[in-house]
Amino acid sequence: MRLRNVKGAKEKIESSEYIVLDYQNYQGHFKDLFHNDNPIHIEIGMGKGKFIKDLALKNPHINYIGIEKFDSVIVRALEKIEDLDIPNLFLIRMDATEIDNIFNHEIEKIYLNFSDPWPKVRHARRRLTSDYFLKKYDNIFIDKKSIEFKTDNRHLFEYSVKSLTDYGYQIDNLCLDLYSEDITDNIATEYEEKFHNKGMPIYKIEVSK
Amino acid sequence: MRLRNVKGAKEKIESSEYIVLDYQNYQGHFKDLFHNDNPIHIEIGMGKGKFIKDLALKNPHINYIGIEKFDSVIVRALEKIEDLDIPNLFLIRMDATEIDNIFNHEIEKIYLNFSDPWPKVRHARRRLTSDYFLKKYDNIFIDKKSIEFKTDNRHLFEYSVKSLTDYGYQIDNLCLDLYSEDITDNIATEYEEKFHNKGMPIYKIEVSK
Repeated sequence: MRLRNVKGAKEKIESSEYIVLDYQNYQGHFKDLFHNDNPIHIEIGMGKGKFIKDLALKNPHINYIGIEKFDSVIVRALEKIEDLDIPNLFLIRMDATEIDNIFNHEIEKIYLNFSDPWPKVRHARRRLTSDYFLKKYDNIFIDKKSIEFKTDNRHLFEYSVKSLTDYGYQIDNLCLDLYSEDITDNIATEYEEKFHNKGMPIYKIEVSK
Repeated sequence: MRLRNVKGAKEKIESSEYIVLDYQNYQGHFKDLFHNDNPIHIEIGMGKGKFIKDLALKNPHINYIGIEKFDSVIVRALEKIEDLDIPNLFLIRMDATEIDNIFNHEIEKIYLNFSDPWPKVRHARRRLTSDYFLKKYDNIFIDKKSIEFKTDNRHLFEYSVKSLTDYGYQIDNLCLDLYSEDITDNIATEYEEKFHNKGMPIYKIEVSK
């Protein structure tokens, strides 16, 4: 993602009610943030936030947390939601590598959309579907583990299918060309719309264990 | 595959030295057919035989058996090999459903290429990567189980990745667009060449357990 400095981003983020600045205080009891016991789903690398915003509006009885590390991107997400009242959505500015320090067996589902492919083999660990991250996810899942992953990047997808199944995940759904199917339920990310409009196939896998 | 009646097919098959007519006699000791202890690999649904012929020529220290049920197709394979001397190749005319009556823990690897997709859900069992067939393969594999599968059919491929991993196979290699990679080792089937030339992606998966 191309990153621009967005003027006043830091201030906008720190003053938004959607942002959880003191997220460290909620470890193991993020349900207190939502004041209910609904399941919590997260998107790691939410980018400009369209996906998680639409998902939260569609499913008011599920709680959502969007995670993103770049101020300049989060601020774009905030622009989309600041005039809306979405009580089941919060955002956290953090690096994904910290995720198992923040959540503690309280997440039911992880969404990964158009994650950074980190194409070089020596960077493979940084891919959000690597063994390194899957181990971290084990510590944040509540019980049943569920991951949904979409990408336009073929190599990342091939890698991810192998990595997820090697790790013991079962494939619930696999689609190698999302837009050739009936996808009335699909919520597209900004990236997804862009790449699909270029005629590129969108790959999707849903796994659980 | 379009099937034509080929005049004299039956006679040609019955008189060919490549065809094992008395295959029932070799159950559990197919190595006797080859007069050596080299590993035995099979292709189920070998079609017109280019793939297994090329593979056998390339790897003289592996024994190959091509299986095909249609006379009119086998006879085309015979035309390719009748003037060649390939001691590590035999062909069997039989239906794949009989496979576990013929082989008995003596096969090291199964190749499945461009198998019939059987697109209707009620026919799913007939797909060569179905649970029904995977159970049969368990009875013919010698020890380590290894399957290599190529197809141009996206739905069959999606189904097969799930079916194979559900059954406990590990993915050794997954490629969603074979011809975009360095594939100097690849041996193309007749179908593969045709579909690739039409610009369709060729999918490949190698699994083992």
